[in-house]
Amino acid sequence: MEKICILGAGSWGSALGILLAKKGYDVDMWSLDKEQCESVNRTRENVDFLPGVVFPNNINLSNDLGVSVQGAKAVVLAVPSQAVRSVLKSAKPFITREQVIVNVAKGFEKETNLRISQVCKQELPENNFAVLSGPSHAEEVGRDMPTTVVVAAEDIKVAELVQDIFISPKFRVYTNEDLIGVELGGTLKNIIAFGAGISDGLGYGDNTKAALMTRGIREIVRLGVAMGAKATTFSGLSGIGDLIVTCTSMHSRNRRAGILVGQGKTLDEALEEVKMVVEGVVATEVAYEISKKYDIDMPITREIFGVLYEGKDVKKSVIDLMLRSRTHEMEDLSI
Amino acid sequence: MEKICILGAGSWGSALGILLAKKGYDVDMWSLDKEQCESVNRTRENVDFLPGVVFPNNINLSNDLGVSVQGAKAVVLAVPSQAVRSVLKSAKPFITREQVIVNVAKGFEKETNLRISQVCKQELPENNFAVLSGPSHAEEVGRDMPTTVVVAAEDIKVAELVQDIFISPKFRVYTNEDLIGVELGGTLKNIIAFGAGISDGLGYGDNTKAALMTRGIREIVRLGVAMGAKATTFSGLSGIGDLIVTCTSMHSRNRRAGILVGQGKTLDEALEEVKMVVEGVVATEVAYEISKKYDIDMPITREIFGVLYEGKDVKKSVIDLMLRSRTHEMEDLSI
Repeated sequence: MEKICILGAGSWGSALGILLAKKGYDVDMWSLDKEQCESVNRTRENVDFLPGVVFPNNINLSNDLGVSVQGAKAVVLAVPSQAVRSVLKSAKPFITREQVIVNVAKGFEKETNLRISQVCKQELPENNFAVLSGPSHAEEVGRDMPTTVVVAAEDIKVAELVQDIFISPKFRVYTNEDLIGVELGGTLKNIIAFGAGISDGLGYGDNTKAALMTRGIREIVRLGVAMGAKATTFSGLSGIGDLIVTCTSMHSRNRRAGILVGQGKTLDEALEEVKMVVEGVVATEVAYEISKKYDIDMPITREIFGVLYEGKDVKKSVIDLMLRSRTHEMEDLSI
Repeated sequence: MEKICILGAGSWGSALGILLAKKGYDVDMWSLDKEQCESVNRTRENVDFLPGVVFPNNINLSNDLGVSVQGAKAVVLAVPSQAVRSVLKSAKPFITREQVIVNVAKGFEKETNLRISQVCKQELPENNFAVLSGPSHAEEVGRDMPTTVVVAAEDIKVAELVQDIFISPKFRVYTNEDLIGVELGGTLKNIIAFGAGISDGLGYGDNTKAALMTRGIREIVRLGVAMGAKATTFSGLSGIGDLIVTCTSMHSRNRRAGILVGQGKTLDEALEEVKMVVEGVVATEVAYEISKKYDIDMPITREIFGVLYEGKDVKKSVIDLMLRSRTHEMEDLSI
């Protein structure tokens, strides 16, 4: 059977690995953590990141990049955004030209403000690249809950190849040619999810959060279009679909971190408590910088930046947003 | 002080009455239920529909339409959609030309398939009309949670007049000139909320529901545009904003009824248990008929119609939706 390599053994990498193994692929997962590899190989469970879900026998974890990458049809990048470049640099000697790279992480590279596809292009300029995104909590994919995602690539044939790899009756994969839009939808929604968490943490209700999300998708569209995405993409699975699931589900670590900040914890305390990587924190900083460069109005991102990096009072921040002077809805809706 | 009349003393009418009374308006509310009028006037609480929220002393409930309507600057329609025409017919003798009619109910008239603004135009052709819609659960507005809504009218000056009446620091009112779009957004989202409830009732997760909502807003846009609305309106508060709050909050009676149906109850049993009017049930039937007339593809509405009116198995229905053959996301996104 064909082999797929997954770099990273967090919750999302594990859920996708299990999905592919159930489809019959030989799955080789790589993890930096040797003990984790041994533990999962032995117990057939990733207790830290996806407890309670069984790893089929055709998944093998290894700490050796060469072992994991060699012979794979596709290499799935499931590491935190800030680790992508270093993992690619280490994996590079083993990666061949015909292997397609599939990123499933959702974030920017902090130092460069680049999207992950741009980082990949710099490190592996000859490989085909696709991004997989959409409303897909690992905890639910691991439990076979019906889920829909979108795969985007500059070349639709690459997207279709990746679609074929992942699609299953309970995991519907759509294709989209707007790579930038799909990438940005998944990345920028984490900022709004952090804000939704703050609103929840302050004790506000569903009305307030829905208002924040509605305004949030508008500023995502504004920045996205300026960066080269199609506006319509944000009406899809990687836009409002992913925004909805991330802002309303307790599975979302971005929202959970926001709740803690809304309740009065410092950012460091919140991150300590959530434990897993909270991509929205870096995304806020990068998006705020990019929005200034493109001169795009992003009021929610600006407020969250203020809370996270300038010590702005959270309560004042949300109230500022709600009381903004704009009163005609179409001014906002016309991008 | 100026007087505002509210026809209907359910949860939403009560919450808006309290909001206006706190702003200093004299509020006269009408209810068909004489006992309810006496009880609320005495206890200053609407125990059945908005328990725990105090009615200020400048709200008076009456069973006499003449008393309630006379001298009011605006007449707010807060009765179920199916009662709008009969209430208007009864109130007509007391309504004067300069009174603006503000509808806050979200539904179609069943017999005629008309929007509420069309019913009003037939009954009160000379009065100005506005609709108020958006993510605004009464339970939260009654408790002063920050909330945003949109007011639409064919004449923007009418919308601005209504905006002035309702706006407060915690209740932000935006204006929009797309009356049809704002009306349809509030009405059609109830169908998707019913579907979201079914998904929850079947035990599916947040991924599944987000997929349903993402596809749901697309079919709302398709029908809305065919009926004369602007596509962008559905990106706003009365579109995705209201959709989000209705599909994710337990305050939503449409969602609650859907959950019961998803758990295997019949429609009648579900409606019996929810008690309050579930607008989504009639909206499904009307939207399905209109979609056939305009030849618009509305797969979710069609499936819910099948479940509600043709005895289709709910489980099969959701699975049908998830497994639809379309695989390129842009086909769906390009309306």
